[in-house]
Amino acid sequence: MSPAQIKDLIRTIPDFPTLGVRFRDITTLIAHGEGFQASVAHLAERAARSGADMVAGIEARGFIFGAALAAKLGIGFVPLRKPGKLPMPTIGIDYALEYGEARLELDPGVIAAGQRVLLIDDLLATGGTAVAAAELLRRAGANVEEALFVVNLPHLGGAQALRAVGVAVEALVSFDD
Amino acid sequence: MSPAQIKDLIRTIPDFPTLGVRFRDITTLIAHGEGFQASVAHLAERAARSGADMVAGIEARGFIFGAALAAKLGIGFVPLRKPGKLPMPTIGIDYALEYGEARLELDPGVIAAGQRVLLIDDLLATGGTAVAAAELLRRAGANVEEALFVVNLPHLGGAQALRAVGVAVEALVSFDD
Repeated sequence: MSPAQIKDLIRTIPDFPTLGVRFRDITTLIAHGEGFQASVAHLAERAARSGADMVAGIEARGFIFGAALAAKLGIGFVPLRKPGKLPMPTIGIDYALEYGEARLELDPGVIAAGQRVLLIDDLLATGGTAVAAAELLRRAGANVEEALFVVNLPHLGGAQALRAVGVAVEALVSFDD
Repeated sequence: MSPAQIKDLIRTIPDFPTLGVRFRDITTLIAHGEGFQASVAHLAERAARSGADMVAGIEARGFIFGAALAAKLGIGFVPLRKPGKLPMPTIGIDYALEYGEARLELDPGVIAAGQRVLLIDDLLATGGTAVAAAELLRRAGANVEEALFVVNLPHLGGAQALRAVGVAVEALVSFDD
């Protein structure tokens, strides 16, 4: 299944979460067995080129693609979690969202110094969350050079924001509006 | 890698989240590439016997194993989410936890009537969340006959609670205290 066919499985929901926004919803893609498996296979091809030895996924939709990818590649998966979820001492990063603040946490004990960690999420918009995720992984000692997404919304500038902090970006599909 | 070796990769954290509780933490298992991949392979063997045509995972750690399993099997994945996360009209179920209440939501549009859905989570304790998840999936028309877990804590009675509502239970590893 090609990226164009994968794109057709992504549902667009008008005016969610706010008026004028077109929400690109991967619920329909992951419910489609062949489409989900093909998405993970495409991610795996790109990940293999990056030579990562660990995958980090952003809670919660990033867990869906990131964990499937890590299991397929046979490399470890590290969850970047919302506050208060991890049982061990964590490190965290606060960052700004369009409305308000958010925080990601990580168990630094599972990352070795210099480990090449590939960052995964379902969708790249402004890149605020992904930039914070890369910074948090680096604080734990990881080498973060690449981020993979299923969907990119190029007009929101996320890829530029990530490149500005030294993270290359690839995505399976793009929506230009 | 055998289930006994997988068990050795699960970290035990004393007195979390409350005094006297031994928290069984899969963070260390999923960070271990071989261990994570082997866990998914063992789940896939058991899932293949059940003949499921969709996997449902409970937010958020259930996404990690459930999505990896669905992608491996080439069948769809349906996330059972915390309230307010899904963009489309959802159905939900409120249920009691040891302390307080919780709610799971589901997009019923991705489940066809009679679809055989396999329920996945990382850990089975009292079974409260899993019983609610099975009930929610059935309200959407799913046929839910089996639940798979990485870890079972048999002394907390979750398997009996699930069997009482017609859901068979398997787990890769058990901790008896």
